[in-house]
Amino acid sequence: MPERIVIALGGNALQSKDSPPTAEAQLQVVKRTCGHLADISRRGYEMAVVHGNGPQVGRIVLASETARDTVPPMPFDVCGAMSQGYIGYHIQQALKYALAARGRSIPVVSLTTQVVVDRGDPAFQNPTKPIGGFYSAEEARALERDKGYTMREEATKGWRRVVPSPQPRRIVEIDAVRLLWDHAIVITCGGGGVPVAENEDGTLEGVAAVIDKDLSAELLAEQVEADKLLILTEVEKVAIHFGKPEQRDLDHLTLAQAAEYAREGQFGVGSMLPKVQAAMRFVRHDPEKAAIITSLDRCLEALDGKTGTRITFA
Amino acid sequence: MPERIVIALGGNALQSKDSPPTAEAQLQVVKRTCGHLADISRRGYEMAVVHGNGPQVGRIVLASETARDTVPPMPFDVCGAMSQGYIGYHIQQALKYALAARGRSIPVVSLTTQVVVDRGDPAFQNPTKPIGGFYSAEEARALERDKGYTMREEATKGWRRVVPSPQPRRIVEIDAVRLLWDHAIVITCGGGGVPVAENEDGTLEGVAAVIDKDLSAELLAEQVEADKLLILTEVEKVAIHFGKPEQRDLDHLTLAQAAEYAREGQFGVGSMLPKVQAAMRFVRHDPEKAAIITSLDRCLEALDGKTGTRITFA
Repeated sequence: MPERIVIALGGNALQSKDSPPTAEAQLQVVKRTCGHLADISRRGYEMAVVHGNGPQVGRIVLASETARDTVPPMPFDVCGAMSQGYIGYHIQQALKYALAARGRSIPVVSLTTQVVVDRGDPAFQNPTKPIGGFYSAEEARALERDKGYTMREEATKGWRRVVPSPQPRRIVEIDAVRLLWDHAIVITCGGGGVPVAENEDGTLEGVAAVIDKDLSAELLAEQVEADKLLILTEVEKVAIHFGKPEQRDLDHLTLAQAAEYAREGQFGVGSMLPKVQAAMRFVRHDPEKAAIITSLDRCLEALDGKTGTRITFA
Repeated sequence: MPERIVIALGGNALQSKDSPPTAEAQLQVVKRTCGHLADISRRGYEMAVVHGNGPQVGRIVLASETARDTVPPMPFDVCGAMSQGYIGYHIQQALKYALAARGRSIPVVSLTTQVVVDRGDPAFQNPTKPIGGFYSAEEARALERDKGYTMREEATKGWRRVVPSPQPRRIVEIDAVRLLWDHAIVITCGGGGVPVAENEDGTLEGVAAVIDKDLSAELLAEQVEADKLLILTEVEKVAIHFGKPEQRDLDHLTLAQAAEYAREGQFGVGSMLPKVQAAMRFVRHDPEKAAIITSLDRCLEALDGKTGTRITFA
């Protein structure tokens, strides 16, 4: 049986710090990323790909808000779906070619994916994720009043909309992912999935929220019974005392150690912490399995156990 | 064996003339549309759905151009992929519910879909589809010079970009559609598909073009060996002398009759003609099969042979 892995791609898999925030530049970065993904496929792994969308959906929202006198602005859930189309298109185009260049002919397709969140999730009481552009205090008050947005002041730059980051509860399109799994590489849960809440009558309804893509990747990994959750980011290993002289890179973390370090505040709240939390959830769900956090460039060596941080139950 | 149909949805399936061009209004129209689609599914048909994207991608391009001093504008192929995410999200959300309300639990998913066009297609010598906003003569000249756009003057309103409408040659993600077909309702080739051209090295590259969604639906119907191609639009039947006192609605068209009427110019170039052409191609490909052109509201009766225009080989 081939090993099944769910791969979560960080922002650096889509966009480089040295290039402009354009679609053209993204495609160049995605081509390089897809070389790594195709190398993983060539090793015989079965895989699905989850990508982030923070900067992309931010720009889509900003363009939509900027053009609001010309074109009606898009709701946030729709902007998320648009970002899935945008990023998924680039990945499937580039990955298909990277596979072919390695003699592999495997269907690659991205699915528009909704992820259910709970309206009672405490995150809705405490929106934390800033999205879109900056507004004056007066504009911010008008948006709060007219649109029900939560606005927050950011030092010196003005007011900005914040949305909650609730937990992913259910992947609506999971059946389609399962149907495709054995025969295709599926790109799904892009940006953590388009967040939807379930109404009493059973309808789903888009909500303004951002689901952490590492947590959605973890949920996906559980639901397809993946053998490994591979979280790719900018650093080769998880570290404690990160950025300090006493920084220590970790080859291995047990669930208990990870929980302890998390309590100590060793992992950055918007960056490494959700990755470690996703890894912890995965090994808690199935103590026989492992999660790996490493850099995109070292993904193969990490799968071989030569680098990266391996998170296991014990 | 259940009958297999490919359904092409016209603009009125997504947007009403009486409501504003917003995402919120689109969702309401899509919900009604999906009631009809779910009724078709309840009859036991297997189906895939292809939708247009003209007004939607137009607004995405326009918002992107309007905001260009704030956010780098998106290339046209990316705008197409974004429109697939946007519209696909609405359809899969609404259709899943409409099916559940009829006691049917079938996965519904939309695929980001690329469709290959031929760079040698004569359409590239004669761009005809206007997209995006209006520009002054001076701005138009700058866009032609700096971006290689083809700009055309529209009476009184100014200059506008035009892109070619080439023939669909190949659906890149057809394997994924086939894998899903027996078990799911797939939304694919949205807006005719994201147009891509094949480079000599085998890479695909997005091009600025609009593929007619009825022709892509026809290609899809061929490739999945659909029994019927069902093209849904605003009118119940195809007519000759359309809009004139002697208008005659047609119950049936043979390939030869359709070709004759098309030569006479009986069908509107941007509206009914591509639908009839798609129907003609489908029955030419397999003379045992039939295409139906009818209105969204009458789709069930048309499938029962009670209304609509049926196009057959002979």
